[in-house]
Amino acid sequence: MTLKSLIRTIPDHPKPGIQFRDVTTLMKDPAGFGRAIDLLAQRYGSQEIRLVAGIESRGFIVGAALAHRLGAGFVPIRKKGKLPGPVIHEDYALEYGTDSVEVHVDAVNTGERVLLVDDLIATGGTAEAALKLIARLGGVVVETAFLVDLPDLGGRRRLEALGQKVFSLTEFEGD
Amino acid sequence: MTLKSLIRTIPDHPKPGIQFRDVTTLMKDPAGFGRAIDLLAQRYGSQEIRLVAGIESRGFIVGAALAHRLGAGFVPIRKKGKLPGPVIHEDYALEYGTDSVEVHVDAVNTGERVLLVDDLIATGGTAEAALKLIARLGGVVVETAFLVDLPDLGGRRRLEALGQKVFSLTEFEGD
Repeated sequence: MTLKSLIRTIPDHPKPGIQFRDVTTLMKDPAGFGRAIDLLAQRYGSQEIRLVAGIESRGFIVGAALAHRLGAGFVPIRKKGKLPGPVIHEDYALEYGTDSVEVHVDAVNTGERVLLVDDLIATGGTAEAALKLIARLGGVVVETAFLVDLPDLGGRRRLEALGQKVFSLTEFEGD
Repeated sequence: MTLKSLIRTIPDHPKPGIQFRDVTTLMKDPAGFGRAIDLLAQRYGSQEIRLVAGIESRGFIVGAALAHRLGAGFVPIRKKGKLPGPVIHEDYALEYGTDSVEVHVDAVNTGERVLLVDDLIATGGTAEAALKLIARLGGVVVETAFLVDLPDLGGRRRLEALGQKVFSLTEFEGD
Protein backbone atom coordinates (compact mmCIF):
# COMPACT_ATOMS: atom_id res chain seq x y z
CA MET A 1 0.00 0.00 0.00
CA THR A 2 1.28 3.44 -0.91
CA LEU A 3 -0.31 6.61 0.40
CA LYS A 4 -0.72 7.85 -3.15
CA SER A 5 -2.76 4.80 -4.16
CA LEU A 6 -5.27 5.60 -1.39
CA ILE A 7 -5.98 9.07 -2.79
CA ARG A 8 -8.96 8.99 -5.16
CA THR A 9 -9.00 11.11 -8.30
CA ILE A 10 -12.36 12.59 -9.30
CA PRO A 11 -12.24 13.73 -12.93
CA ASP A 12 -13.70 17.07 -13.95
CA HIS A 13 -14.41 18.23 -10.39
CA PRO A 14 -15.32 20.92 -9.49
CA LYS A 15 -15.23 21.86 -13.19
CA PRO A 16 -14.20 20.30 -16.52
CA GLY A 17 -10.49 19.65 -16.88
CA ILE A 18 -9.72 19.57 -13.14
CA GLN A 19 -8.55 16.23 -11.72
CA PHE A 20 -9.61 16.54 -8.09
CA ARG A 21 -7.36 14.67 -5.63
CA ASP A 22 -9.69 13.41 -2.90
CA VAL A 23 -7.83 12.67 0.31
CA THR A 24 -10.94 11.45 2.17
CA THR A 25 -10.29 7.94 0.82
CA LEU A 26 -6.89 7.98 2.50
CA MET A 27 -8.30 9.40 5.75
CA LYS A 28 -10.99 6.74 6.12
CA ASP A 29 -8.41 3.98 5.76
CA PRO A 30 -7.10 3.21 9.28
CA ALA A 31 -3.70 2.01 8.07
CA GLY A 32 -3.32 4.80 5.53
CA PHE A 33 -4.32 7.62 7.86
CA GLY A 34 -2.10 6.18 10.58
CA ARG A 35 0.83 5.89 8.18
CA ALA A 36 0.47 9.48 6.95
CA ILE A 37 0.49 10.87 10.49
CA ASP A 38 3.36 8.52 11.47
CA LEU A 39 5.51 9.86 8.64
CA LEU A 40 4.81 13.47 9.55
CA ALA A 41 5.42 12.76 13.25
CA GLN A 42 8.78 11.18 12.41
CA ARG A 43 9.77 14.30 10.50
CA TYR A 44 8.70 16.80 13.17
CA GLY A 45 9.00 14.82 16.40
CA SER A 46 12.32 16.42 17.38
CA GLN A 47 11.48 19.92 16.13
CA GLU A 48 9.95 21.22 19.36
CA ILE A 49 6.68 22.18 17.68
CA ARG A 50 4.50 24.11 20.14
CA LEU A 51 1.50 24.60 17.81
CA VAL A 52 0.19 23.01 14.65
CA ALA A 53 -1.87 25.46 12.60
CA GLY A 54 -4.34 23.82 10.21
CA ILE A 55 -6.12 25.53 7.32
CA GLU A 56 -9.91 25.10 7.07
CA SER A 57 -11.16 22.55 6.72
CA ARG A 58 -9.31 19.44 5.50
CA GLY A 59 -6.18 20.90 7.05
CA PHE A 60 -7.95 20.52 10.40
CA ILE A 61 -8.03 16.75 9.93
CA VAL A 62 -4.33 16.32 9.20
CA GLY A 63 -3.23 19.08 11.53
CA ALA A 64 -5.22 18.04 14.59
CA ALA A 65 -4.08 14.41 14.41
CA LEU A 66 -0.48 15.55 14.03
CA ALA A 67 -0.79 18.10 16.85
CA HIS A 68 -2.00 15.40 19.21
CA ARG A 69 0.76 13.06 18.16
CA LEU A 70 3.42 15.74 18.70
CA GLY A 71 2.02 16.87 22.05
CA ALA A 72 1.33 20.27 20.52
CA GLY A 73 -1.69 22.56 20.58
CA PHE A 74 -3.87 23.10 17.54
CA VAL A 75 -4.74 26.45 15.96
CA PRO A 76 -7.46 26.74 13.29
CA ILE A 77 -6.97 29.14 10.38
CA ARG A 78 -10.45 29.82 9.04
CA LYS A 79 -12.35 31.53 6.28
CA LYS A 80 -13.73 34.98 7.02
CA GLY A 81 -16.34 35.28 9.76
CA LYS A 82 -16.02 31.80 11.26
CA LEU A 83 -13.90 32.45 14.36
CA PRO A 84 -15.79 33.81 17.37
CA GLY A 85 -13.07 35.93 19.04
CA PRO A 86 -10.99 38.92 17.91
CA VAL A 87 -9.06 38.08 14.71
CA ILE A 88 -6.57 39.38 12.19
CA HIS A 89 -7.12 38.62 8.52
CA GLU A 90 -5.20 38.36 5.25
CA ASP A 91 -6.65 38.56 1.76
CA TYR A 92 -5.46 36.36 -1.09
CA ALA A 93 -6.23 36.29 -4.78
CA LEU A 94 -8.52 33.73 -6.40
CA GLU A 95 -8.88 33.08 -10.11
CA TYR A 96 -11.65 35.66 -10.01
CA GLY A 97 -11.72 38.03 -7.04
CA THR A 98 -10.27 37.60 -3.57
CA ASP A 99 -10.91 35.62 -0.42
CA SER A 100 -9.48 35.90 3.07
CA VAL A 101 -8.36 33.82 6.02
CA GLU A 102 -8.36 34.71 9.70
CA VAL A 103 -6.73 33.63 12.94
CA HIS A 104 -7.51 34.55 16.54
CA VAL A 105 -5.21 37.37 17.69
CA ASP A 106 -4.27 35.37 20.78
CA ALA A 107 -3.76 32.03 19.00
CA VAL A 108 0.05 32.29 18.76
CA ASN A 109 2.51 34.03 21.07
CA THR A 110 5.76 35.68 20.01
CA GLY A 111 8.50 33.15 19.38
CA GLU A 112 6.31 30.06 19.48
CA ARG A 113 7.33 27.37 17.00
CA VAL A 114 4.50 26.59 14.60
CA LEU A 115 4.02 23.90 11.97
CA LEU A 116 1.55 24.96 9.25
CA VAL A 117 -0.49 22.10 7.74
CA ASP A 118 -3.01 21.68 4.94
CA ASP A 119 -4.16 18.70 2.94
CA LEU A 120 -3.00 19.95 -0.47
CA ILE A 121 -0.94 22.71 -2.05
CA ALA A 122 -1.93 23.98 -5.49
CA THR A 123 -1.07 27.62 -6.23
CA GLY A 124 -0.17 28.25 -2.58
CA GLY A 125 -2.28 31.39 -2.18
CA THR A 126 -4.08 30.28 0.96
CA ALA A 127 -0.89 28.94 2.52
CA GLU A 128 0.92 32.22 1.83
CA ALA A 129 -1.86 34.17 3.53
CA ALA A 130 -1.77 31.77 6.49
CA LEU A 131 2.00 32.20 6.79
CA LYS A 132 1.54 35.98 6.90
CA LEU A 133 -1.02 35.65 9.69
CA ILE A 134 1.32 33.55 11.83
CA ALA A 135 4.23 35.92 11.17
CA ARG A 136 2.12 38.93 12.19
CA LEU A 137 1.48 37.24 15.56
CA GLY A 138 5.21 36.65 16.02
CA GLY A 139 5.10 32.89 15.45
CA VAL A 140 8.08 31.06 13.94
CA VAL A 141 6.93 28.73 11.16
CA VAL A 142 9.24 25.71 11.16
CA GLU A 143 7.86 24.27 7.90
CA THR A 144 4.64 23.95 5.92
CA ALA A 145 3.47 20.36 5.39
CA PHE A 146 0.92 18.87 3.01
CA LEU A 147 -0.41 15.43 2.16
CA VAL A 148 -0.41 16.32 -1.54
CA ASP A 149 1.63 18.67 -3.71
CA LEU A 150 0.51 19.57 -7.24
CA PRO A 151 3.93 20.80 -8.39
CA ASP A 152 2.75 21.99 -11.80
CA LEU A 153 0.69 24.69 -10.08
CA GLY A 154 3.77 26.24 -8.52
CA GLY A 155 2.72 26.58 -4.89
CA ARG A 156 5.86 25.02 -3.45
CA ARG A 157 8.11 27.30 -5.48
CA ARG A 158 6.03 30.29 -4.41
CA LEU A 159 6.44 29.51 -0.70
CA GLU A 160 10.13 28.64 -1.08
CA ALA A 161 10.68 31.98 -2.81
CA LEU A 162 9.44 33.57 0.43
CA GLY A 163 12.15 31.69 2.34
CA GLN A 164 9.77 29.03 3.66
CA LYS A 165 10.44 25.31 3.93
CA VAL A 166 7.84 23.05 2.31
CA PHE A 167 7.23 19.31 2.64
CA SER A 168 4.65 16.98 1.12
CA LEU A 169 4.02 13.27 1.48
CA THR A 170 2.88 12.78 -2.14
CA GLU A 171 2.94 14.58 -5.51
CA PHE A 172 0.60 14.42 -8.48
CA GLU A 173 2.00 15.69 -11.77
CA GLY A 174 -0.08 16.85 -14.69
CA ASP A 175 -2.50 19.11 -12.86
CA MET B 1 -6.20 22.95 35.20
CA THR B 2 -9.67 21.73 34.28
CA LEU B 3 -10.78 21.33 30.69
CA LYS B 4 -13.74 23.58 31.38
CA SER B 5 -11.52 26.43 32.54
CA LEU B 6 -9.73 26.36 29.17
CA ILE B 7 -12.96 26.96 27.23
CA ARG B 8 -13.52 30.65 26.61
CA THR B 9 -16.98 32.19 26.79
CA ILE B 10 -17.75 34.95 24.30
CA PRO B 11 -20.84 36.87 25.42
CA ASP B 12 -23.53 37.81 22.93
CA HIS B 13 -22.02 35.83 20.04
CA PRO B 14 -23.23 35.32 17.37
CA LYS B 15 -26.21 37.35 18.62
CA PRO B 16 -27.36 39.05 21.84
CA GLY B 17 -28.14 36.66 24.69
CA ILE B 18 -26.00 33.78 23.39
CA GLN B 19 -22.99 32.80 25.50
CA PHE B 20 -20.70 31.21 22.89
CA ARG B 21 -18.45 28.45 24.26
CA ASP B 22 -15.20 28.77 22.31
CA VAL B 23 -13.21 25.53 22.36
CA THR B 24 -10.31 26.96 20.34
CA THR B 25 -8.71 28.16 23.58
CA LEU B 26 -8.66 24.56 24.81
CA MET B 27 -7.36 23.24 21.49
CA LYS B 28 -4.40 25.64 21.34
CA ASP B 29 -3.27 24.59 24.82
CA PRO B 30 -0.93 21.60 24.38
CA ALA B 31 -1.74 20.11 27.80
CA GLY B 32 -5.46 20.77 27.51
CA PHE B 33 -5.85 19.38 23.99
CA GLY B 34 -3.75 16.36 24.92
CA ARG B 35 -5.80 15.76 28.06
CA ALA B 36 -9.12 15.96 26.18
CA ILE B 37 -8.01 13.40 23.62
CA ASP B 38 -6.47 11.20 26.35
CA LEU B 39 -9.80 11.07 28.21
CA LEU B 40 -11.72 10.16 25.06
CA ALA B 41 -9.11 7.55 24.08
CA GLN B 42 -9.39 5.95 27.53
CA ARG B 43 -13.15 5.69 27.11
CA TYR B 44 -13.07 4.22 23.60
CA GLY B 45 -9.72 2.44 23.46
CA SER B 46 -11.24 -1.00 23.98
CA GLN B 47 -14.35 -0.42 21.88
CA GLU B 48 -12.92 -1.64 18.56
CA ILE B 49 -13.75 1.61 16.80
CA ARG B 50 -13.08 1.25 13.06
CA LEU B 51 -14.02 4.80 12.05
CA VAL B 52 -14.39 8.15 13.78
CA ALA B 53 -16.89 10.40 11.99
CA GLY B 54 -16.44 14.11 12.67
CA ILE B 55 -18.95 16.84 11.93
CA GLU B 56 -17.74 19.91 10.00
CA SER B 57 -15.72 21.64 11.02
CA ARG B 58 -14.66 21.79 14.68
CA GLY B 59 -15.69 18.14 14.92
CA PHE B 60 -12.86 17.45 12.45
CA ILE B 61 -10.33 18.69 15.00
CA VAL B 62 -11.49 16.51 17.89
CA GLY B 63 -12.43 13.56 15.67
CA ALA B 64 -9.23 13.36 13.65
CA ALA B 65 -6.97 13.50 16.69
CA LEU B 66 -9.03 10.79 18.37
CA ALA B 67 -9.13 8.65 15.21
CA HIS B 68 -5.36 8.70 15.02
CA ARG B 69 -5.03 7.88 18.69
CA LEU B 70 -7.44 4.92 18.36
CA GLY B 71 -5.83 3.60 15.17
CA ALA B 72 -9.09 4.26 13.34
CA GLY B 73 -9.92 5.91 10.04
CA PHE B 74 -11.57 9.33 9.85
CA VAL B 75 -14.78 10.18 7.99
CA PRO B 76 -15.85 13.80 7.45
CA ILE B 77 -19.54 14.70 7.66
CA ARG B 78 -19.89 17.94 5.78
CA LYS B 79 -22.31 20.70 4.88
CA LYS B 80 -24.03 20.44 1.52
CA GLY B 81 -21.86 20.59 -1.60
CA LYS B 82 -18.45 20.24 0.08
CA LEU B 83 -17.63 16.56 -0.57
CA PRO B 84 -16.29 15.75 -4.04
CA GLY B 85 -17.60 12.20 -4.53
CA PRO B 86 -21.10 10.67 -4.59
CA VAL B 87 -22.95 11.44 -1.32
CA ILE B 88 -26.16 10.88 0.59
CA HIS B 89 -27.67 13.75 2.53
CA GLU B 90 -30.01 14.44 5.43
CA ASP B 91 -31.88 17.66 6.11
CA TYR B 92 -32.32 19.07 9.59
CA ALA B 93 -34.31 21.97 10.98
CA LEU B 94 -32.75 25.29 11.96
CA GLU B 95 -34.44 28.04 13.96
CA TYR B 96 -35.54 29.41 10.60
CA GLY B 97 -35.48 27.03 7.64
CA THR B 98 -33.41 23.89 7.10
CA ASP B 99 -29.83 22.87 6.42
CA SER B 100 -28.31 19.55 5.43
CA VAL B 101 -25.28 17.38 5.98
CA GLU B 102 -23.68 14.85 3.65
CA VAL B 103 -21.37 11.87 3.74
CA HIS B 104 -19.65 9.97 0.93
CA VAL B 105 -21.68 6.87 0.02
CA ASP B 106 -18.57 4.70 0.33
CA ALA B 107 -17.33 6.23 3.61
CA VAL B 108 -18.74 3.49 5.87
CA ASN B 109 -19.32 -0.20 5.17
CA THR B 110 -22.08 -2.33 6.62
CA GLY B 111 -21.36 -3.37 10.19
CA GLU B 112 -18.39 -1.07 10.74
CA ARG B 113 -18.19 0.35 14.24
CA VAL B 114 -18.29 4.14 14.18
CA LEU B 115 -17.77 6.79 16.86
CA LEU B 116 -19.51 10.09 16.02
CA VAL B 117 -17.74 13.22 17.29
CA ASP B 118 -18.43 16.94 17.38
CA ASP B 119 -17.11 19.75 19.53
CA LEU B 120 -20.45 20.73 21.10
CA ILE B 121 -24.04 19.54 21.39
CA ALA B 122 -26.79 22.15 21.65
CA THR B 123 -30.19 21.11 20.25
CA GLY B 124 -28.70 18.00 18.63
CA GLY B 125 -30.19 18.58 15.19
CA THR B 126 -26.93 18.21 13.27
CA ALA B 127 -25.88 15.17 15.29
CA GLU B 128 -29.24 13.49 14.68
CA ALA B 129 -28.89 14.02 10.94
CA ALA B 130 -25.33 12.66 11.06
CA LEU B 131 -26.52 9.57 12.95
CA LYS B 132 -29.12 8.95 10.23
CA LEU B 133 -26.46 9.19 7.53
CA ILE B 134 -24.25 6.60 9.22
CA ALA B 135 -27.23 4.29 9.84
CA ARG B 136 -28.24 4.50 6.16
CA LEU B 137 -24.76 3.28 5.20
CA GLY B 138 -25.07 0.35 7.62
CA GLY B 139 -22.61 1.66 10.18
CA VAL B 140 -23.01 0.85 13.88
CA VAL B 141 -22.66 3.99 16.00
CA VAL B 142 -21.06 3.00 19.30
CA GLU B 143 -21.59 6.40 20.93
CA THR B 144 -21.65 10.12 20.14
CA ALA B 145 -18.98 12.15 21.93
CA PHE B 146 -18.62 15.89 22.46
CA LEU B 147 -16.23 18.22 24.24
CA VAL B 148 -19.13 20.33 25.48
CA ASP B 149 -22.78 19.63 26.29
CA LEU B 150 -25.29 22.46 26.76
CA PRO B 151 -27.87 20.37 28.63
CA ASP B 152 -30.48 23.11 28.81
CA LEU B 153 -30.87 22.91 25.04
CA GLY B 154 -31.92 19.26 25.18
CA GLY B 155 -29.66 17.70 22.58
CA ARG B 156 -28.50 14.84 24.76
CA ARG B 157 -32.07 13.89 25.70
CA ARG B 158 -33.05 14.07 22.03
CA LEU B 159 -30.33 11.63 20.97
CA GLU B 160 -30.94 9.34 23.94
CA ALA B 161 -34.64 9.22 23.01
CA LEU B 162 -33.48 7.72 19.69
CA GLY B 163 -31.67 4.98 21.60
CA GLN B 164 -28.23 6.53 21.17
CA LYS B 165 -25.49 6.74 23.78
CA VAL B 166 -24.09 10.21 24.39
CA PHE B 167 -20.95 11.34 26.22
CA SER B 168 -19.43 14.75 26.85
CA LEU B 169 -16.27 15.88 28.62
CA THR B 170 -17.80 19.11 29.99
CA GLU B 171 -21.18 20.77 30.53
CA PHE B 172 -22.24 24.40 30.65
CA GLU B 173 -25.58 25.11 32.29
CA GLY B 174 -27.63 28.23 31.72
CA ASP B 175 -27.48 28.36 27.93
